[in-house]
Amino acid sequence: MLDVESQQRLFDRLRDLFVDRRAYSVDPAECAVYAYDNSRREAIPDAVVFPTTHEQVGPLLPLCEPAACPAPGTTRPGGGIVASFERMTRILAIDPANRLAVVEPGVLNADLQIALKPHGFFWAPDPTSAPFCSIAGNIACNAGGPRAVKYGATRDNVLALRAINGRGEEFRCGKPTSKGATGYDLTRLLIGSEGTLAVITEATLKLTPLASDKRTLRATYADIASAAAAVARIMAQPVTPCALEFMDDEALRLARNHAGESIPEAGALLIVEVDGEADALPAAVATVSRAARGDGLIELHVATDAAEVTRLWAARKALSPALRTLAPNKINEDVVVPVSRVPELIAGLKDISARHGIPIVTFGHAGNGNIHVNLLHHPEDPEQAAQVSACLSAVFDLVFALDGSLSGEHGIGLSKREFMPRALDPVALDLMRRIKDQFDPDGILNPGKLLPD
Amino acid sequence: MLDVESQQRLFDRLRDLFVDRRAYSVDPAECAVYAYDNSRREAIPDAVVFPTTHEQVGPLLPLCEPAACPAPGTTRPGGGIVASFERMTRILAIDPANRLAVVEPGVLNADLQIALKPHGFFWAPDPTSAPFCSIAGNIACNAGGPRAVKYGATRDNVLALRAINGRGEEFRCGKPTSKGATGYDLTRLLIGSEGTLAVITEATLKLTPLASDKRTLRATYADIASAAAAVARIMAQPVTPCALEFMDDEALRLARNHAGESIPEAGALLIVEVDGEADALPAAVATVSRAARGDGLIELHVATDAAEVTRLWAARKALSPALRTLAPNKINEDVVVPVSRVPELIAGLKDISARHGIPIVTFGHAGNGNIHVNLLHHPEDPEQAAQVSACLSAVFDLVFALDGSLSGEHGIGLSKREFMPRALDPVALDLMRRIKDQFDPDGILNPGKLLPD
Repeated sequence: MLDVESQQRLFDRLRDLFVDRRAYSVDPAECAVYAYDNSRREAIPDAVVFPTTHEQVGPLLPLCEPAACPAPGTTRPGGGIVASFERMTRILAIDPANRLAVVEPGVLNADLQIALKPHGFFWAPDPTSAPFCSIAGNIACNAGGPRAVKYGATRDNVLALRAINGRGEEFRCGKPTSKGATGYDLTRLLIGSEGTLAVITEATLKLTPLASDKRTLRATYADIASAAAAVARIMAQPVTPCALEFMDDEALRLARNHAGESIPEAGALLIVEVDGEADALPAAVATVSRAARGDGLIELHVATDAAEVTRLWAARKALSPALRTLAPNKINEDVVVPVSRVPELIAGLKDISARHGIPIVTFGHAGNGNIHVNLLHHPEDPEQAAQVSACLSAVFDLVFALDGSLSGEHGIGLSKREFMPRALDPVALDLMRRIKDQFDPDGILNPGKLLPD
Repeated sequence: MLDVESQQRLFDRLRDLFVDRRAYSVDPAECAVYAYDNSRREAIPDAVVFPTTHEQVGPLLPLCEPAACPAPGTTRPGGGIVASFERMTRILAIDPANRLAVVEPGVLNADLQIALKPHGFFWAPDPTSAPFCSIAGNIACNAGGPRAVKYGATRDNVLALRAINGRGEEFRCGKPTSKGATGYDLTRLLIGSEGTLAVITEATLKLTPLASDKRTLRATYADIASAAAAVARIMAQPVTPCALEFMDDEALRLARNHAGESIPEAGALLIVEVDGEADALPAAVATVSRAARGDGLIELHVATDAAEVTRLWAARKALSPALRTLAPNKINEDVVVPVSRVPELIAGLKDISARHGIPIVTFGHAGNGNIHVNLLHHPEDPEQAAQVSACLSAVFDLVFALDGSLSGEHGIGLSKREFMPRALDPVALDLMRRIKDQFDPDGILNPGKLLPD
């Protein structure tokens, strides 16, 4: 936190910058609203600003003295300035001939999809949080979602960015073209950098044509290992599903509680979706079904009506919030391993759960090997409290042993930073630090995030 | 070039490093063979080395004192060490379940495609030079090819790299997973960096399932503007062609000389290819055909047999070498503009050609807005010699005015370096320089390439 004198100076400078008094707030009550995010961590900022134009962002950065520990983003170690882009929500262009859209950073993912639909296009990233996550948030964390297995994550679907680095210098990178070999790829360097390199003020997004039709399959298996083996078989054949989601037995129990008895009881369930031209779908369903069959399959069922598909997805999408209500504390990781190693991951997690006495619920984007691993624990239970961090460490050891990584689509933030030296090659990590120093030499952008001390 | 003493020191150190005497050469005759590339520039290196393992590459870098001006790559300002990876040609793994292949840098693109085919997969980049270009070369320049319009260029199709930076530090970046949000994306930063940041010694490539069938359409137009307008219409509808190639009237004349009268005379020609499941192709052909029709269409023809398709592609692929024989000098650019601006680009190029008296032949990957612009000139003609550089400058001014860029898939190298300040945002260019300094502080990797002085 700032001392009283520094705080006054900050207030004075904000007042000088913004004619519109509603463009920022230093009211502790309003700052408290921007003090937390979904991590349940909390840190009250010194000020919250609400830019409405690119031009308002640049002058903010010199206000962010290193001592002020400021950060466009969500929670920080404490103090600082939170920049909320909730008022920069314009879709600046939708351009079918160039298959792109230009957006301000605060546009919500779901709002963009609705705007694109009449043009016959979509933007590939589809996190479960689509109705309330912003495009710039998607860019910061390289967000994915179920469709990423076929259409890629955020990094595969952005053409150009407008941004301001930690030196307060504004720049554009990338081009509104689907190809380019003109210098280093700063666009993809910024994507997934969690706001630590630059503040993004505009994004040119690559659009994908909407498939004309879709089929949804539900496959249940006697046990988790059989389902995981089916995932590897499905990805080894040529028809790429546009979703290949996985739920373990515990996740299914939760889903039944939420969505009722239409959700089957089983050791594990896969949702497999294929899209394309209507004429081609029967062959695609047959090919994928062949791969889904194998030891341990209980039932393979093609959804016959839209209501059934909606119920299935509603159950899957309700899992993450439902887990919140189940255990007073959950640690939700989104590890990623090569698809062929998913069976070993799932088997290993069962062992770890038993050894540490911490229930683990798994579900997620199996087609990418991206599994949400939820450690459920009661902090007032001293045995669990003692085990939970060793359990988490064992989960990551397993992931690294399987040639996987810390995060598939959520990013590192504050909580996974300490594991970065185990996740990354030391030279690569050193190069990342050196890059950070070039973009943000004073460390004013999202300090303390992503890179370990 | 090195003085005699430095040269002797280099020879001694190479002899210490390599037990196998055939692993390097300082013979001027052999060095001369590695003195040039397809740019027709020439610079004799002090030594050529032929690493056979990753382990042999690291110790080479300390030999590359800044004064020695060394460079893994092709031609350099002069002297230095050329590292040729022609002996690192092993395909280390083909892994269908994880949809990836692991290769050494010297594997030829076409050899990889042949090895992948029995597994039902391909690697998307398909430059015309596939039979003689290496994967590491593709990575260096972010190579594309006709298929990139649907399947992406190199940057979209690499998962992980093993490399050695200019400090001589080896590192791995990326993971054998299709998703990742664990730190900055060094993999894509290296792709397209033209060997200026690190030497790549291993690559993990993302594979794509082979489509089961394909149809090839040939559309001829009265003039270039009509063909360019059709390209924009085709890309604005949902069926993405797996190739959308363009030839102007001059290119067609050349193609007829090469491939005979099966190549039609017209103002311009498009090759449009669609792939997918056989059942879906009639609908895809109908949709694309609708978009191809419009003002100026002469004939739309679906190829009926394999021989016709082969002839059409042979004519297209012969264009680049054929141009070499046509004019004593050609400047071959591969500019890229947004697809909707292709009509303006083509019209503008006609004007520039007339104004400067320099014939310009255009063809290329119209679906990406990536047009190969060939300036044909006779250096002994004093009028042309006086005009050619002004003409090239006017071409780039036009491209920049259309929100395009210097290169779609060839890269910058030595010859386009001087245009980089006009092509890129000055802050972005400064950030690229800063990144270069971190990876290669002594500037020993491909000195003088890509970034302007």
